[in-house]
Amino acid sequence: SRELFVLTYGALVAQLCKDYEKDEDVNICLDRMGYSIGIRLIDDFLARSAVKKCRSYSETADMIAQVAFKMYLGVTASVSCSSAAGNEFSLILDKNPLVDFVEELPAEPASLCYCNLLCGVIRGALEMVHLAAEVTFLQDRLKGDAVTEIGITFLRKAEDRKHKRN
Amino acid sequence: SRELFVLTYGALVAQLCKDYEKDEDVNICLDRMGYSIGIRLIDDFLARSAVKKCRSYSETADMIAQVAFKMYLGVTASVSCSSAAGNEFSLILDKNPLVDFVEELPAEPASLCYCNLLCGVIRGALEMVHLAAEVTFLQDRLKGDAVTEIGITFLRKAEDRKHKRN
Repeated sequence: SRELFVLTYGALVAQLCKDYEKDEDVNICLDRMGYSIGIRLIDDFLARSAVKKCRSYSETADMIAQVAFKMYLGVTASVSCSSAAGNEFSLILDKNPLVDFVEELPAEPASLCYCNLLCGVIRGALEMVHLAAEVTFLQDRLKGDAVTEIGITFLRKAEDRKHKRN
Repeated sequence: SRELFVLTYGALVAQLCKDYEKDEDVNICLDRMGYSIGIRLIDDFLARSAVKKCRSYSETADMIAQVAFKMYLGVTASVSCSSAAGNEFSLILDKNPLVDFVEELPAEPASLCYCNLLCGVIRGALEMVHLAAEVTFLQDRLKGDAVTEIGITFLRKAEDRKHKRN
């Protein structure tokens, strides 16, 4: 059913682009929608994957990239750790099925993160297993980058989060 | 990936309900979006299903109910012919996976056809194989009906369509 999903997702993004003047607002909206989805999807994921509890951020990132991505998008991502502190990871997708049918994109370099829903989904799902994280697109093939890269920064404590935002 | 699709579809419907005051306008919008999806999804369907050309309306209705529904929604529908002329069919779903996560519906009997996208998808896909049809929800479990029933009326010729609309 992936094609129907991908096309429906495209309709959603198109509708939001009609609704909001600024790409940034579309990104925020997609992220919020994704969050609402993630906090519900996590139950489905835990029930169906029957995975054990992850013991580290690294294991968690692998779980998202290998098991969750495979389950919901049909592809896996490769993972690299991008901080000495061991709390920042990149999920790298060679192929992003969510953009399979995307044909028309604005000519000028837009700030629209077409797949921003995914960031919200990951953020929401992680929060439900008591892991605060910031999730953003770092590279996007739709914008001409070589790969699609999603960055996940795990926020250890409330202070970390505050620090990060300042 | 069905759960992610179902939840994303819910986000789309919720967004449209914010955008439009009247349920009828949401229904129209969902149908139009579905149509745009259907005219693109048909290629995927024909390529992946490798089905032979249908020789009758009845075969076409069965194809939608048994093969297409299974492929994109993971369920099959039962089919009944509901006109002596042999051009009206009902697809009956005992279980509609698109509504799996729907929890809150307005208290008063709303005119929202939550799954109206499906009607548009079927209409668009049929049009691409040169079959004009009208597709509407006749019963909906979300509205308290015993089953979910999608009505397909094949319009043989331009005159038929005109006649039907008058």
